[in-house]
Amino acid sequence: MTDLTHFDPLGNAVMVDVSAKAPTERVAVAAGSVLMAADTMALIQARGVKKGDVLAVAQLAGIMGAKRTPDLIPLCHPLALSSVKVELQLDPARNAVDIQATCKLTGQTGVEMEALTAVSVAALTVYDMVKAVDKSMRITDIRLLHKSGGKSGTYQAV
Amino acid sequence: MTDLTHFDPLGNAVMVDVSAKAPTERVAVAAGSVLMAADTMALIQARGVKKGDVLAVAQLAGIMGAKRTPDLIPLCHPLALSSVKVELQLDPARNAVDIQATCKLTGQTGVEMEALTAVSVAALTVYDMVKAVDKSMRITDIRLLHKSGGKSGTYQAV
Amino acid sequence: MTDLTHFDPLGNAVMVDVSAKAPTERVAVAAGSVLMAADTMALIQARGVKKGDVLAVAQLAGIMGAKRTPDLIPLCHPLALSSVKVELQLDPARNAVDIQATCKLTGQTGVEMEALTAVSVAALTVYDMVKAVDKSMRITDIRLLHKSGGKSGTYQAV
Amino acid sequence: MTDLTHFDPLGNAVMVDVSAKAPTERVAVAAGSVLMAADTMALIQARGVKKGDVLAVAQLAGIMGAKRTPDLIPLCHPLALSSVKVELQLDPARNAVDIQATCKLTGQTGVEMEALTAVSVAALTVYDMVKAVDKSMRITDIRLLHKSGGKSGTYQAV
Amino acid sequence: MTDLTHFDPLGNAVMVDVSAKAPTERVAVAAGSVLMAADTMALIQARGVKKGDVLAVAQLAGIMGAKRTPDLIPLCHPLALSSVKVELQLDPARNAVDIQATCKLTGQTGVEMEALTAVSVAALTVYDMVKAVDKSMRITDIRLLHKSGGKSGTYQAV
Amino acid sequence: MTDLTHFDPLGNAVMVDVSAKAPTERVAVAAGSVLMAADTMALIQARGVKKGDVLAVAQLAGIMGAKRTPDLIPLCHPLALSSVKVELQLDPARNAVDIQATCKLTGQTGVEMEALTAVSVAALTVYDMVKAVDKSMRITDIRLLHKSGGKSGTYQAV
Repeated sequence: MTDLTHFDPLGNAVMVDVSAKAPTERVAVAAGSVLMAADTMALIQARGVKKGDVLAVAQLAGIMGAKRTPDLIPLCHPLALSSVKVELQLDPARNAVDIQATCKLTGQTGVEMEALTAVSVAALTVYDMVKAVDKSMRITDIRLLHKSGGKSGTYQAV
Repeated sequence: MTDLTHFDPLGNAVMVDVSAKAPTERVAVAAGSVLMAADTMALIQARGVKKGDVLAVAQLAGIMGAKRTPDLIPLCHPLALSSVKVELQLDPARNAVDIQATCKLTGQTGVEMEALTAVSVAALTVYDMVKAVDKSMRITDIRLLHKSGGKSGTYQAV
Repeated sequence: MTDLTHFDPLGNAVMVDVSAKAPTERVAVAAGSVLMAADTMALIQARGVKKGDVLAVAQLAGIMGAKRTPDLIPLCHPLALSSVKVELQLDPARNAVDIQATCKLTGQTGVEMEALTAVSVAALTVYDMVKAVDKSMRITDIRLLHKSGGKSGTYQAV
Repeated sequence: MTDLTHFDPLGNAVMVDVSAKAPTERVAVAAGSVLMAADTMALIQARGVKKGDVLAVAQLAGIMGAKRTPDLIPLCHPLALSSVKVELQLDPARNAVDIQATCKLTGQTGVEMEALTAVSVAALTVYDMVKAVDKSMRITDIRLLHKSGGKSGTYQAV
Repeated sequence: MTDLTHFDPLGNAVMVDVSAKAPTERVAVAAGSVLMAADTMALIQARGVKKGDVLAVAQLAGIMGAKRTPDLIPLCHPLALSSVKVELQLDPARNAVDIQATCKLTGQTGVEMEALTAVSVAALTVYDMVKAVDKSMRITDIRLLHKSGGKSGTYQAV
Repeated sequence: MTDLTHFDPLGNAVMVDVSAKAPTERVAVAAGSVLMAADTMALIQARGVKKGDVLAVAQLAGIMGAKRTPDLIPLCHPLALSSVKVELQLDPARNAVDIQATCKLTGQTGVEMEALTAVSVAALTVYDMVKAVDKSMRITDIRLLHKSGGKSGTYQAV
């Protein structure tokens, strides 16, 4: 049976040793959604056309969150991201805020966790800004859409 | 129409002024799940009986993540949590890791975001530790189960 | 001659012992400006009417910066701000972005440094976002406008 | 009209994608001043000859502040500075503390923000250490003196 | 047999729930030493009389380190220290730098870890600044000297 | 007499300029111990066989602590560690928890401080988790065992 790379044979958690890996161009794309009541969606939409936009605040929080990944995820390597892009879109048909994040690095380790963390922090920020009117929102379907670079090659979600 | 508390009339984002609020006992409980392939679930279960447990690492990351909430969520107040509890359980029937976090504070502001952040960081850590064998996991259904304390009173998810 | 409170008689830097002080309501207001070329000002003005506003990003950075004050200023106390408000305005007559920050706390120590740090970080963020078109901007006149609360009483800039 | 590099066409704030840039040697030099009352200047001068020097504390804070730049400035890349140098000098003729910071990196992005942040944090620290005797100090003229390296070439303040 | 307060009956690590404790005045004093070669000690002594003092840098790092305790120690509560004092002294007879830290808080939890962390970070900083000339230094005897306040009362090292 | 690399001729603390150094493979190994009462040792041993292991929590804290080194040690360079490994072992004969940390980097500066910080944070975490039953523990003998890479070559503790 395959075993987990983050433990050594004695059961110690380890930051995986990537020192022998060649630096390659790494890209990861992650996505997720915040589901809410119809009235809440309408409120966010109404703000979106003027200054003081919920999505703009969440978008910035997502970018900053990507940078905090090694502080949050115990076994993630500290790394120097070369690009972070976060986009939020309203889907009124589903009463959803859809979030997508893309991270890039030329380095020895992938950036999946950075993209997933960006999505998570953006989603939490949407929740925070709207929670006074809707506590029943759900953050859902946070997943990896795509990764490329590195020894394990390209992954594309089906 | 109700408006959002995190913007002033000019559209400036604001950290809500809680200085006039009386400190009260605040509790918040949040939950969420990581869904995965059956083989991945089996792998985590196998580890759970020995040292080097995925859930133990994620559980600790969740506690530490709760403390980083004001660094991550732009308009959250910095605050001195009096308790953080994070629990992870396997549900093999759903191939799910279920996460629940409880935060407490005696203070002027609620701790919903701290509980939701604890769940999110624990979920991301599960993903990180298992991603070498399963990139198609989903972090899902992050939501508030319960809050009490403060002017808005008690909320209980249905 | 008056001496400095941040050194003990041996010359050791100290975080001033505030444990015997009664908690009082503290407020501090600080301000500052970023001066730039007329063309740069025009560019920021043009953005201000649509999504993707320089001032909105800087405004959020200022709020988050206030929370990082004890990490940055060696002898500042960690504290639980109850309010942070940051406002940026364009003054086209002076080709200036004017920044004002207000912080509040009920506690044993003042929040002047938090307000000044919020202004500084907002100003640095304006610089960052516009530096590709204007490297000659100046951050200037960062100062305390007002403080109240605490043993030293109220200060009002003339 | 030139547009801002930190927004995409939809108005999303972006961390600029530098992944296609070649790493080059980057240097940035920034400066700024803290202006104060003559008595305050005399007090700092008096300390400078013994242990417990205001300038030494501010100088160290500036170096540490440079390292926190990506945590503070939302769209700054995380990066691995190869050198930070901060110098503070008294100019009694102007009752000024003059601060200069030099940062270096071999990388894909400039270090102007790191140098400007070092100056800002050093200046805020001077303010903090002396504010008990002089609240009317001003942090002023924070500016870029020089940068070299990268596609945009060398900038020299006039 | 006594059991550990930081685990629940299921073996989950927990941040101990202090929400029912009354805030009391807490004090903790910790100490430790850095042992080195006689030549290294002489070098530090020589610097101590002029600007650029190893002990002054380490002393400041210790104060800042105390503030980072909840970021470093997984189950420590975030808290608002009311005083941090760090002192370093040379003992040439033992070729030792002796470090002592005192932390205070009015709160629901003790500050032993903050005092011990301050000593550790100050000791590490001494090592860092002198390691180019002496890699064989030892950081040793980090211990709690005294604590008071809280339910467990006063502890005094023998 | 040799002088210290972390001060310039004027006595300013400096982050050493490594920009002219070639990146090489760097390794550092550090160690240290926590000494305790026999009953405390027995308590930790009893936990080690089930979930909720003191050593597992401390081990993870050590890895995360290594990543915080540039935040803690004022003149340390920020850097992108390629590997961190922390191991804790009980030595019942000495009533000691022995800690060893290994850090790696391909870069321009050594990782001794990262390894020493990992050991220190792991030791502090052991103290934190057991302090309710034993306040007289000592953290001791934190030292560099080995370093290789860089201009100063290999160091091996005797």
